Amino acid sequence: MSQSGVDSPAAVVDLLAVLAYGELSAFQRLAADARFAPGLADKVALSTMAVAEFGHFRLLYDRLAGLGVDPEAAMGCFLAPLDEFHELTDPADWLEGLVKAYVGDGFAADFYREIAGRLDPDTRALVRQVLDDTGHAAFVVDRVRAAIAAQPAIGGRLALWARRLVGEALGQAQRIAAERPALAGLLVGDAGAQAAERSVRDLFTLLTDRHAERMRALGLAD
Amino acid sequence: MSQSGVDSPAAVVDLLAVLAYGELSAFQRLAADARFAPGLADKVALSTMAVAEFGHFRLLYDRLAGLGVDPEAAMGCFLAPLDEFHELTDPADWLEGLVKAYVGDGFAADFYREIAGRLDPDTRALVRQVLDDTGHAAFVVDRVRAAIAAQPAIGGRLALWARRLVGEALGQAQRIAAERPALAGLLVGDAGAQAAERSVRDLFTLLTDRHAERMRALGLAD
Repeated sequence: MSQSGVDSPAAVVDLLAVLAYGELSAFQRLAADARFAPGLADKVALSTMAVAEFGHFRLLYDRLAGLGVDPEAAMGCFLAPLDEFHELTDPADWLEGLVKAYVGDGFAADFYREIAGRLDPDTRALVRQVLDDTGHAAFVVDRVRAAIAAQPAIGGRLALWARRLVGEALGQAQRIAAERPALAGLLVGDAGAQAAERSVRDLFTLLTDRHAERMRALGLAD
Repeated sequence: MSQSGVDSPAAVVDLLAVLAYGELSAFQRLAADARFAPGLADKVALSTMAVAEFGHFRLLYDRLAGLGVDPEAAMGCFLAPLDEFHELTDPADWLEGLVKAYVGDGFAADFYREIAGRLDPDTRALVRQVLDDTGHAAFVVDRVRAAIAAQPAIGGRLALWARRLVGEALGQAQRIAAERPALAGLLVGDAGAQAAERSVRDLFTLLTDRHAERMRALGLAD
């Protein structure tokens, strides 16, 4: 099922499994963060997004099962890094939760979408489907911009928070890459050390650019 | 739209609204309690139930909107009693969370199902649909019985916990009845004081009997 020579069944299973547990975590986090909502309409909006993430989890879970893999066993090795990321970046309030949903999930989505481009068409289509924006973007941008307009000092705190989120995400990503060579193989390819270095460098340039775009959309200095 | 002479548009809106906020609260509580799950399979099972509750919330929300009512305004007066109930009965661990989902939701479902019997057929059908067991019962009974079999002393603690849940639920129900006369009117009807007293007594006998059945199913002494 390889298109480019760099994917393998192990890499596909790893990618679907890390995404699945990521979606399950996102579901639980958004549902929990809904307690910070300043009103009922915002609570309903965040809960609706949480439920959409669970739908994505279910698609990935079913695909893993369809590949003849035990989905829970496949997700097992990703529990520690993802749980640790969420423990280290537990939002203190409504706005921190919103920025995490937008900046953190956006960063992860860009990363997974790029990797999926190196996989077979079926996997690629599924990954792109589950990474579709579930309404986070417009909702968060609207709420955060309004909060900063009302109280400009909030912007500095949220910009620092966004930087911390990306730092912690990169730390856990390095840990996962070190522990799962098949998954890391998707990133660097098999075209030799120089090409691998360029491939990783290009990816990080792209991720950084997109992150800067999101920060500007929020009205935050990167 | 009255079948029995005791319902009114205000009572129907109140009932749909208190149920809607109850389902939204159940969604958030189950999603949060999933963090206590001893393993990934249990976490997925509880999250799946949470999402089913959100589906019920959405049905009730849409029905309220369909009646020309602002769903958020209608739910407004039920936030304090329901939030307080959940704050007063925050589970300390996985088993307390499961018993709360089964005993507390079961008690509430019996109550609402009886009240809905006094309403127009459309409302009655919707209420019964959203109160359908979403898999709580079999899942919880299985997990709690296994835990008590492994460590019988747990039974005493959980029996006390269940008694507290019912006590707090009745306290909040009295508060709601006092604040929402139209809703309380569904309970007592309009057939005179003696008939009203009999109606309330019969309802509480039924609720108590059903609660005792659930306690026996869990292997707990009432």
